[in-house]
Parts: sequence; structure tokens; C-alpha cells
Amino acid sequence: MKEIVYTPIGVIHTPFKDTAGVPIQPRAAKGIKGSIEILPDYAEGLKDLDGFSHIILLYHLHLSKGFSLKVTPFLDNTLRGLFATRAPKRPNPIGLSVVRLIEIKGNVLRIEEIDVVDGTPLLDIKPYIPEFDKKKTFRIGWLTDRVKEAKNKRADKRFT
Amino acid sequence: MKEIVYTPIGVIHTPFKDTAGVPIQPRAAKGIKGSIEILPDYAEGLKDLDGFSHIILLYHLHLSKGFSLKVTPFLDNTLRGLFATRAPKRPNPIGLSVVRLIEIKGNVLRIEEIDVVDGTPLLDIKPYIPEFDKKKTFRIGWLTDRVKEAKNKRADKRFT
Repeated sequence: MKEIVYTPIGVIHTPFKDTAGVPIQPRAAKGIKGSIEILPDYAEGLKDLDGFSHIILLYHLHLSKGFSLKVTPFLDNTLRGLFATRAPKRPNPIGLSVVRLIEIKGNVLRIEEIDVVDGTPLLDIKPYIPEFDKKKTFRIGWLTDRVKEAKNKRADKRFT
Repeated sequence: MKEIVYTPIGVIHTPFKDTAGVPIQPRAAKGIKGSIEILPDYAEGLKDLDGFSHIILLYHLHLSKGFSLKVTPFLDNTLRGLFATRAPKRPNPIGLSVVRLIEIKGNVLRIEEIDVVDGTPLLDIKPYIPEFDKKKTFRIGWLTDRVKEAKNKRADKRFT
């Protein structure tokens, strides 16, 4: 299929200089503060965003090279199909996090509950809208008994 | 910043042959069935995904050309900052939908609540995990009084 070319709209700054030790999800990143620097050319597009308490970040997992179609996720010790996991090494390594938006000043956003490594290139920001994005699930597969552990789990080097 | 190159992992099939008339969010797409055809090379990565009732689709909004930093969203009549909206014309036109997963057979997923145009190239699938993806918001900005209208709203031609 045809190649798709994107260019980052900014960069995410966090306290995590290395992938090992990064919270594996925003849930494990409570209180962890970061910032997003949007390229000045795009700053005008941030208008009205400060009305939202939570935003969706789509970013390029720039340290993930290659992928396997079966992976052992951080929260499991069994090989799982890649698309049934949130592992960062994917055919298109796009990361997704819903984070708290604290403040916007010019082209800089202060955020909380951020779970990515410092310097991650940002692809898009969307407002998080519960009416669109919140779902009543009734099955969460292999994660059923394991999801609670995410809170205390940090990444290791397996996906870099 | 550096260019990022992705290649679709499959294609989304829906009853919508044209952008006009597409539900503007999965919420407005209740009961609408579609399917996803994953390239056979990636089919192995679908293992275990059928354990999840909802999945996150990231796709390339292939019909969106160009963007403005201020847009009038479908649910408003005021110009808003682009990143405070879900409008499809974006610097990196990546779409995000959480849909119901009905069944997987080989490399084909049957899904429901799909709000994209037929032939949309798929970039990634992730399991939807409420513990990671569900947030308690306390502000949804300009959408506060308008979000309920999404249910009955269909797209028009303004973003194509």
C-alpha cells in the first residue's frame, strides 16, 4: 500500500530520559508533569483547547525499531498477538495517551500523567470527549486479571 | 522536523462511499457495521484481540487535503482552534475511533459503530482498555452544550 508521510507538529518533554523506567500507561504516571512544545507555526490551532481538562496525544514512538507480530507484554508472561497489546514496537509505531491538560501559554502546554520518553515527536492533539471516547466495555481479554498491576509497573528495555 | 513514513496495515470497509453523510463520531454510528481487512502479512498479530469488546482504530484520513488552524466544527458555528476540534483536516490527518469488535475470521474483523468513509487506510489497531483510556473529565470546553447533538449529526462536505 501507499506510503503516508507525516511531520511532527511539536515535541513532548518529560522527566524520562530513557525508555526503561517510563510508566507503561498514563495511569501509572499520576502526578508526573511534562510539557509539549508546539512548533510556533501551529500555535494558532491551540485556541480553545484550554477549555478541555484532558487531551489525546498521538505521537511517534521514535525509539521503537522493528516489530514482532507476537510479543510478551509488560503485564503478561505469555506471547500475545501484537495488536492485542499496547507494545510500542508496531508496524506503524504510533503511541496514544490521554493526559491531563494543566495550562497553555503561547505554544507550550503543561500536562500531567504523561508516560512517554523525553523528546518524543508529537503528531496530533485532539480534545478528549467522553461522549465520543469513553466506552462501556464488557471484555478486556488477557488483561482481565492483570490490568490492575499497570499502576505500579515501569517499562524495561524489551521494546527498544 | 524529520519526516515520518508509515504504511497502511489494512483497509476499513464501511457503507459510506462519500464523506458527506458519514456519522461524525462512533456515537452517531450505532448499529452501523463495517469490516477491516488486515494485510495477510500482519494477520498473526491479531491473535488474542478477539478477547476485547472494543478496539481503537488509528487511520489515515486519506480524503482530507490541507488544513486551516481555525475551523468551524460540525457541532458549532464559531471558528475554533483546530486542535480543540476533531475536524479531519489536520497537519497529520490521523483519525481515531473506538469501535465494537464483533468477530475476527482470519485477516478480517467485523466491527460496529464505525464512522469513517469506505476505503480508509488503517494504520494501527490497539485494544481499548478502560483502565488506560477512560478518563474522568471535568471540562469539555466549547462542546459543553453541544456534545449531545453529535448523535444526530452527519458530516457534510466542508472538510473535503
